[in-house]
Amino acid sequence: MSGTAHVRAQPWQVGQWLNVREPLTLESLRGRVVVLHAFQMLCPGCVSHGIPQAKAIHAASPPDKLRVIGLHTVFEHHEAMTPLALEAFVHEYRLRFPIGIDQPAADSPIPLTMRAYGLEGTPSLILIDKAGCIRLQHFGQMDDLRVGAVIGQLLTEPA
Amino acid sequence: MSGTAHVRAQPWQVGQWLNVREPLTLESLRGRVVVLHAFQMLCPGCVSHGIPQAKAIHAASPPDKLRVIGLHTVFEHHEAMTPLALEAFVHEYRLRFPIGIDQPAADSPIPLTMRAYGLEGTPSLILIDKAGCIRLQHFGQMDDLRVGAVIGQLLTEPA
Amino acid sequence: MSGTAHVRAQPWQVGQWLNVREPLTLESLRGRVVVLHAFQMLCPGCVSHGIPQAKAIHAASPPDKLRVIGLHTVFEHHEAMTPLALEAFVHEYRLRFPIGIDQPAADSPIPLTMRAYGLEGTPSLILIDKAGCIRLQHFGQMDDLRVGAVIGQLLTEPA
Amino acid sequence: MSGTAHVRAQPWQVGQWLNVREPLTLESLRGRVVVLHAFQMLCPGCVSHGIPQAKAIHAASPPDKLRVIGLHTVFEHHEAMTPLALEAFVHEYRLRFPIGIDQPAADSPIPLTMRAYGLEGTPSLILIDKAGCIRLQHFGQMDDLRVGAVIGQLLTEPA
Repeated sequence: MSGTAHVRAQPWQVGQWLNVREPLTLESLRGRVVVLHAFQMLCPGCVSHGIPQAKAIHAASPPDKLRVIGLHTVFEHHEAMTPLALEAFVHEYRLRFPIGIDQPAADSPIPLTMRAYGLEGTPSLILIDKAGCIRLQHFGQMDDLRVGAVIGQLLTEPA
Repeated sequence: MSGTAHVRAQPWQVGQWLNVREPLTLESLRGRVVVLHAFQMLCPGCVSHGIPQAKAIHAASPPDKLRVIGLHTVFEHHEAMTPLALEAFVHEYRLRFPIGIDQPAADSPIPLTMRAYGLEGTPSLILIDKAGCIRLQHFGQMDDLRVGAVIGQLLTEPA
Repeated sequence: MSGTAHVRAQPWQVGQWLNVREPLTLESLRGRVVVLHAFQMLCPGCVSHGIPQAKAIHAASPPDKLRVIGLHTVFEHHEAMTPLALEAFVHEYRLRFPIGIDQPAADSPIPLTMRAYGLEGTPSLILIDKAGCIRLQHFGQMDDLRVGAVIGQLLTEPA
Repeated sequence: MSGTAHVRAQPWQVGQWLNVREPLTLESLRGRVVVLHAFQMLCPGCVSHGIPQAKAIHAASPPDKLRVIGLHTVFEHHEAMTPLALEAFVHEYRLRFPIGIDQPAADSPIPLTMRAYGLEGTPSLILIDKAGCIRLQHFGQMDDLRVGAVIGQLLTEPA
């Protein structure tokens, strides 16, 4: 899916955070553009494309205007992609932005936030505007030029 | 140079156009974002980076909102980069956007538009807003994410 | 290290194999060129360079003349890079060549084969000739052209 | 075409050489492996793939064992790809290996050496062994691993 409907983004359901001291809520980021990058550490397309893109956005953006948030949405190989393994991955790949571990569901391999957002797989990119509405949700690779253009648009809009 | 001063862009001084029937003036594009890509056909950085970026912007953009314009600013190897050679180059590299050949100067190897804009070399990227003001001028490579962000900003601003 | 001394390659000390039914010994491959690729599943340079190179060699080579063997030499983040996690990794990255899990040492984070070969880290590439001698051992990235040239040489030598 | 028939390579018909003082004959290189890279300066696949590959082979090879020779086989846009333009191209792309300009034919757009070798287009790669026989002739892109393997084989063969 790749669309622009102004749907209000649901709260994240995160059990554990990396790279941040306090749990991060979407509400606390109101007024900023939020780039939510859903990934799995053993997903090849995430490692080759999505994560480098998220790192580049993080490096290029002023934190008072835009925040990159990783979301580890494990829906397969749960036994391999544990929080402990994710910590090693984050260390090796030098990820510095906050990463939330999506809360596992009791009744499904799909974790709670992934289900609430209707994500189809990883990597998925979700761009949320200053008012907390989803403006782009894309499964798979999306080139930097297009991602940059939407970010530039959202940054330009009034808060 | 890479800056954001709101300087009004000077008119182009172009002797010959490719890929377009009528000469194109900056004034006629008022209300649209203009991506001016200054290049030389035998400049390796233009061929590997600048021209593919210009092609990608051209392919991704609605022509009623944004126009990509090539500017062949020959300041070296004039005998090799003739209009005839440029036509072969444009054909082989499948460039579809309008390309103006910057007018040679009588007293300098630097052609007239290149001098008027104060370009330092090729590739150079100039982003002009809907009001005809230069908002970014960059010599060398600039990554797609940043270029996209400025384009997204300029597209979002009111005409 | 990158050298060409004709040292006889030591036997592998592998506790578990993936992608192969029977344990593979170096002796059983005598007469073939052996490309031994030492890696860790959470090593970024392995994922971006070493593993794709090993896959390409595997895809390009007739198995009766050359065999690509992966060696999972875990020397850090042991708790994350378990056999179970490696299986998920091998599945996701579609690795088809045999992969041995280097035997952990009782007294060191460095596993036994890694220590016996004196490997400095991952990725490491070891090229073994038809007679079982190490002809190239390289830590880090090595470009395809050079790797190909040594492989071509070893394939051409009489058995 | 991509084959391995041991056909003796024809003499080159070159009117002008760049990067070398004296005309180079194939006979004078007997005993060395010769990598003949046929290209056109305005051929996109040559610029993006073939020429960088030829440069890498040149940089990696000892000149007493292997020689890279460029062959400018102009078969289209003759008016643009003149010797003068080629000189500017060679300067800008920093090509250091000898380059011969294939002799134009009186009765055809295909130059003489290109016709004698039966080349289908550019880029074309021709690998000639120490005895002067063509061992590989390939039109289009060929990956470094395979090219390296054939080069390694030819270097290993006795003179």
